[in-house]
Amino acid sequence: MIKTDILIIGAGPTGLFTVFEAGLLKLKCHLIDALPQPGGQCSEIYPKKPIYDIPAFPEVLAGDLVNNLMEQIKAFEPGFTLGERAQTIDKLDDGTFIVTTNKGTKHHAPVVAIAGGLGSFEPRKPPIANIANFEDKGVEYIIRDPELYRDKKVVIAGGGDSALDWSIFLADVASEVTLVHRRNEFRGALDSVDRVKELKDIGKINLITPAEIDQVNGNEKLESVLIRKNNEASEEILLEVDHFIPLFGLSPKLGPIADWGLEIEKNAIKVNNSLDYQTNIPGIYAIGDVNTYPGKLKLILCGFHEATLMCQSAYQRIFPDKKYVMKYTTVGGVTGFDGTKKEAPKAVVKAIN
Amino acid sequence: MIKTDILIIGAGPTGLFTVFEAGLLKLKCHLIDALPQPGGQCSEIYPKKPIYDIPAFPEVLAGDLVNNLMEQIKAFEPGFTLGERAQTIDKLDDGTFIVTTNKGTKHHAPVVAIAGGLGSFEPRKPPIANIANFEDKGVEYIIRDPELYRDKKVVIAGGGDSALDWSIFLADVASEVTLVHRRNEFRGALDSVDRVKELKDIGKINLITPAEIDQVNGNEKLESVLIRKNNEASEEILLEVDHFIPLFGLSPKLGPIADWGLEIEKNAIKVNNSLDYQTNIPGIYAIGDVNTYPGKLKLILCGFHEATLMCQSAYQRIFPDKKYVMKYTTVGGVTGFDGTKKEAPKAVVKAIN
Ligand SMILES: Cc1cc2nc3c(=O)[nH]c(=O)nc-3n(C[C@H](O)[C@H](O)[C@H](O)COP(=O)(O)OP(=O)(O)OC[C@H]3O[C@@H](n4cnc5c(N)ncnc54)[C@H](O)[C@@H]3O)c2cc1C
Ligand SMILES: Cc1cc2nc3c(=O)[nH]c(=O)nc-3n(C[C@H](O)[C@H](O)[C@H](O)COP(=O)(O)OP(=O)(O)OC[C@H]3O[C@@H](n4cnc5c(N)ncnc54)[C@H](O)[C@@H]3O)c2cc1C
Repeated sequence: MIKTDILIIGAGPTGLFTVFEAGLLKLKCHLIDALPQPGGQCSEIYPKKPIYDIPAFPEVLAGDLVNNLMEQIKAFEPGFTLGERAQTIDKLDDGTFIVTTNKGTKHHAPVVAIAGGLGSFEPRKPPIANIANFEDKGVEYIIRDPELYRDKKVVIAGGGDSALDWSIFLADVASEVTLVHRRNEFRGALDSVDRVKELKDIGKINLITPAEIDQVNGNEKLESVLIRKNNEASEEILLEVDHFIPLFGLSPKLGPIADWGLEIEKNAIKVNNSLDYQTNIPGIYAIGDVNTYPGKLKLILCGFHEATLMCQSAYQRIFPDKKYVMKYTTVGGVTGFDGTKKEAPKAVVKAIN
Repeated sequence: MIKTDILIIGAGPTGLFTVFEAGLLKLKCHLIDALPQPGGQCSEIYPKKPIYDIPAFPEVLAGDLVNNLMEQIKAFEPGFTLGERAQTIDKLDDGTFIVTTNKGTKHHAPVVAIAGGLGSFEPRKPPIANIANFEDKGVEYIIRDPELYRDKKVVIAGGGDSALDWSIFLADVASEVTLVHRRNEFRGALDSVDRVKELKDIGKINLITPAEIDQVNGNEKLESVLIRKNNEASEEILLEVDHFIPLFGLSPKLGPIADWGLEIEKNAIKVNNSLDYQTNIPGIYAIGDVNTYPGKLKLILCGFHEATLMCQSAYQRIFPDKKYVMKYTTVGGVTGFDGTKKEAPKAVVKAIN
């Protein structure tokens, strides 16, 4: 059982910054995310694109924003349960919560902050009848650890940035990379498209278009895929592979959280925005894209503010008898749980004579 | 008469970021500030100190934060009325407002956003009976343009960073710099204290401590000050000077805004935080440190959020019939009023063959 002060569901920008604000209040955080890496939409959908409306950043790449947040919260040593979806929640008699993931990992905390964005990112799966039989037995929708593919035969399907970028990356790792796309045209950064062409020309990527994967076959694990080219039965190719990685994008689903007894409106969780972004269940807060209230804007900077106010309320819930006096970070410094301390250089009081 | 869409009172971080959010909505802004430079508390009180809780900045100097904001809003060409205090407000029959400063400058706008922080910064004045007679005639509490002091005889009073830093700076500009402080000990950055000592040792700063300015004399303009050392009448020095600059700090005063008919609580303006940070007077909003609501935190990141929601409401007020559809900056780019456009590199759609 993982124990923490604030259990954060969703490691997008909002969830990450919560760790910092909680840390200032000496509260520890643990984050659960369905994705294998932190950063939410910023990391998953547009890491290499610039954002222009983060205050005081005339321009920042979404991936750099996440890196900066990770750096900012490091001293508060957040825990992570990645690649697992928060599935069920139970309220104990003492008012604390146990959240269990789809893989059975249990987390115990007095406060739960749902920072689930548009929902947990679930892969779009190709319509192949028996594909579920091979999930994690050769079929993966998300690449968690590229080393898994070292010296293996891999087929990637898809026509966007993920398919392009992973084909390029795995060309140096796998023994054989085949990229299959139902169109001839790919959609992605110009660099990536050009690089795939180069790798194809020197034989490091085997490109098959327009084509689709029609069947997956094997016994215990995946052994081959049937590729149908030009939508012609006469152009079917049976390819021996160790791994099939369909990269058709991830689509967010509010998913199991929708059944937790929270008030939901338009696929988002209603919160009390006039106070602390708490939901209808005391002790459960919802912040960032996942919540809704009159005038709500799904912007990163709004999640930061919501997280900050929420942490003050969480502190009161956890320590009902303590009075917290806020100190500016400039004045009080930042003391990490790892023993580090950052602080402004102190003024000296010194005679001149 | 200066005309604009949103008239912002206070050019602190909140007021500055408002220009950006308004700009995304194609609304123009003009800012009034009592200080000679933008940045509010950050510029005036702690420009060289680090802030640790600006999201995605593990550390940023307050002065750099302001520079970044100025850079971010540049394309939206904000207007500035600096060094003037917003004094009175009049609501016209058509629901628009005219705000007049203490120097008589008039501003006309359909929406007023008060981002006045802790209030307009007013200098702490030394208790010298007739000092008011010489204000702007040799006595200045704020240094607006250092060139004013070129080849002049200057006496600075004070024992903090401003007194130290301006003495150092003017040592190279003025013909004579005298620094007077009522204690022997100065309080400031170690560097500055040491540098003043060096300049004193080589005769570029004339240091008189512990001492106070007792009288200011002159006819049309300041001609001399009477310095009393060690609080002894026997140690009085009559010094001929062109300028006397008491730098005893600025203290913020809500000031005239308190009489505008707004609901005030604990020196701050009450706003509707459950919607749009509007005050009890429709069309007047209050954002950042200057407002109050349940759970309010006087933090920079909160001002950014408040400014953003406020701009959406202002847009509806100005264009009641238009429906604004928010677009992410990453997706829509940022089109400045100066004709510049920033946007994310577009994905290409390209066949590989
Ligand atoms: C293309 C694009 C451009 C954008 N441009 C901008 C912009 O310019 N400016 C701006 O402010 N915003 C922009 N946004 C929106 C911005 O990315 C979101 O506002 C922001 O990511 C929300 O952060 P969050 O932390 O609330 O949620 P998210 O980033 O959505 O993160 C939520 C995380 O929670 C996880 N999660 C959800 N449910 C569960 C569960 N049950 N179990 C485990 N994990 C779960 C998800 O997997 C996800 O990783 C853009 C979005 C997109 C897609
Ligand atoms: C030493 C110190 C350390 C701090 N550290 C932190 C920190 O670590 N993190 C953090 O988030 N915050 C910190 N703060 C607080 C932070 O500086 C404020 O929250 C922030 O400056 C508020 O921004 P604002 O734009 O709302 O108001 P301000 O910065 O106060 O700006 C308001 C401006 O309005 C002007 N004004 C007011 N009334 C009028 C009028 N009638 N006419 C003309 N002009 C007017 C004022 O002159 C001023 O320039 C710190 C503050 C101090 C003093």
